[in-house]
Amino acid sequence: MKMPLEGIRVLDLSQMLAGPVCTRRMGDMGAEVIKIELPGTGEVTRSLAGGNIKDTCGYYIVLNRNKKSITLNLRDAKARDIVYRLAKISDVMIENFRAKTVDKWGIGYDALKEVNPKIICCSISGYGQEGPYSQRPAYDPIAQAMSGWMSITGIEGQEPCLTGLPLGDMLGGTTALYSILAALIYRDRTGKGGKIDISLTDCLIDWLVYIAQFYFIKGTIPSPIGSGHPTNFHRAFKCKDGKWLQVSAPSTPMWDRLVKVLAKNPGYEGLPTDTRFDTLQKRIDNRPIMFPYLNELFMTKNREEWLTELLEGDVPSAPINNVAEALADPQINFRKMVVEVDQPYWGKYKTTGMPVKMTQIEQERYDPPPRLGEHSEEILGSLLGYSKEEIETFKAEGVI
Amino acid sequence: MKMPLEGIRVLDLSQMLAGPVCTRRMGDMGAEVIKIELPGTGEVTRSLAGGNIKDTCGYYIVLNRNKKSITLNLRDAKARDIVYRLAKISDVMIENFRAKTVDKWGIGYDALKEVNPKIICCSISGYGQEGPYSQRPAYDPIAQAMSGWMSITGIEGQEPCLTGLPLGDMLGGTTALYSILAALIYRDRTGKGGKIDISLTDCLIDWLVYIAQFYFIKGTIPSPIGSGHPTNFHRAFKCKDGKWLQVSAPSTPMWDRLVKVLAKNPGYEGLPTDTRFDTLQKRIDNRPIMFPYLNELFMTKNREEWLTELLEGDVPSAPINNVAEALADPQINFRKMVVEVDQPYWGKYKTTGMPVKMTQIEQERYDPPPRLGEHSEEILGSLLGYSKEEIETFKAEGVI
Repeated sequence: MKMPLEGIRVLDLSQMLAGPVCTRRMGDMGAEVIKIELPGTGEVTRSLAGGNIKDTCGYYIVLNRNKKSITLNLRDAKARDIVYRLAKISDVMIENFRAKTVDKWGIGYDALKEVNPKIICCSISGYGQEGPYSQRPAYDPIAQAMSGWMSITGIEGQEPCLTGLPLGDMLGGTTALYSILAALIYRDRTGKGGKIDISLTDCLIDWLVYIAQFYFIKGTIPSPIGSGHPTNFHRAFKCKDGKWLQVSAPSTPMWDRLVKVLAKNPGYEGLPTDTRFDTLQKRIDNRPIMFPYLNELFMTKNREEWLTELLEGDVPSAPINNVAEALADPQINFRKMVVEVDQPYWGKYKTTGMPVKMTQIEQERYDPPPRLGEHSEEILGSLLGYSKEEIETFKAEGVI
Repeated sequence: MKMPLEGIRVLDLSQMLAGPVCTRRMGDMGAEVIKIELPGTGEVTRSLAGGNIKDTCGYYIVLNRNKKSITLNLRDAKARDIVYRLAKISDVMIENFRAKTVDKWGIGYDALKEVNPKIICCSISGYGQEGPYSQRPAYDPIAQAMSGWMSITGIEGQEPCLTGLPLGDMLGGTTALYSILAALIYRDRTGKGGKIDISLTDCLIDWLVYIAQFYFIKGTIPSPIGSGHPTNFHRAFKCKDGKWLQVSAPSTPMWDRLVKVLAKNPGYEGLPTDTRFDTLQKRIDNRPIMFPYLNELFMTKNREEWLTELLEGDVPSAPINNVAEALADPQINFRKMVVEVDQPYWGKYKTTGMPVKMTQIEQERYDPPPRLGEHSEEILGSLLGYSKEEIETFKAEGVI
């Protein structure tokens, strides 16, 4: 085995972001992912705005590497038999339609386990398969709003903010991913499949971790954190050249290192012994005094100068990069987090790399995204045994 | 088996957030997690600010359920033999010290594979184990700054923002989690262990998905998204009662549903046929006209009224809840995402629930966090076979 998930076959009915983020990583780790797309247009992200390579939007491209594409109109009753045949030889089925949609189509877990009792079915939805809101339409920002995440992201007193990318979708897909892998471990040991039900909103609630726990303990409603942290020292400072710098000193030893560096500056010599800031609690309580005092200091030098001094003092600090700066950064490129793919149809393009660096992966895999229905005939013919005539009839009838 | 990870033993050397988030979920799914803590104080999060239950901070409590605690001073050479004996009977070792620290202590992968060739070792760090920045100190906000995430979160022209909770830490821990599970699948099939190297910054770069891909394609540097999306319609609106509402209409069918609801209001009847907004691209280009026009409309009614109308029209929409509202929400409680634990030592307390709803888990597990060293004697004595005298000597010498 050259990849950890070699030999695992995934039937991927999912679309947009949450599901595809999960199945992309399964493909990255060696699984065979068969993506089902609507005949004619393919999944909706192929034609979103934002920037294309050839006829395909970058949104689709980055999320659908290492997958095969077969067209299939799941709304057509004749598609059901094809799904059953695929389910019979697959390990996992994943979907992210509105709750219960696949059940209505006769291709939910209850139907698929009849053809393959070992199958693992995973559903991802905004609110989960059951409950008072389960039939409400939802997208990532709806889950971020519901879960309280928007109330703590952004700047106090300003309009509420989302995280820079759709956290709920990506977390939902990643929760699905590790749940499926746990289910595969369970299946390999017990011979039993099962059903997984992931809600974006649940996942975001889980990720409130200490913010939720502090609320349960103290009852205080948390505010947006800006560039900081409710109880630890983290903060963005603007430097003389207008560039922003992030500085962290969450523990007392870290604070001591920070003030040792800052005390080299005129007017700040007393900082290491300043009794206004000598405990964690005082550094929280005296923020209204401390922040303006430090803001002024950081405005006296350019960012590069500060970075040199702070890193020499072993103080956690970094430039607040824009996306272009981040993707050009030496460490990020050393780690191969930007890769170039070169392939006859797609040509040469850059994309982000695989963040799982493990000795069990002999070589990282970056097969370009499939063209719409690129693998339909291979899968229907060689894999499932449909005849050429049957495949032609499916085409003529709009089933595939 | 009543839990998917039953029978998996995890040696947990990790601290703070990234590592504990990973091992907490392994415990939630049935693994036996043995957490190693510094004698005397325990891990630093036990005494953070924010709110305590008894003598322990909520930060520690929420992240360390379903674990056992043993004290062990890893900086002491005598601890090494204990770690070796534990590694011999464990499936996984996880740590999140600065890069190469465990190697210096003689308890890194190269040492542990000598005592257990099947072991899976996972390291989590800010920048990864290798590369020009690998020895720099880092915390989550440093990784968010480096990776470009801070440049897209928040409001354009305002100070840069972090996500409401430490995304890099939680994502790093969750990436470690699924990588470890994939490694367990690989090990069960090949008999081989291996080494995993996770960097918070790499994980955040991976999660730039389409934002990075659009940059690679078009070269345009993305801006902070506020409550919106660079190419799809998502937005927060303030209502008459001052409350905020999140509305999503990313596709044309969704937009059609939205304007059908809005067109019932005087002055907005023409919205469904308005040629300024009748394509995806126009709805992007004409935002400077569209947003003020819609802002004004939403200010005419209270949030509840809008929610009723929008949900009747099947338009994705939600209140922007604060954390208290989110944790009291009927759907979130229906899903058991708030649970109450009642236990002799800790008493009764609420905490967030387990977001993985899978048939393979017979009953969710919420064992309270361990007291410091609660399981030291059980593990050293019954499990590893050290004598009472040896254990006493370890204590006297400060090894445990």
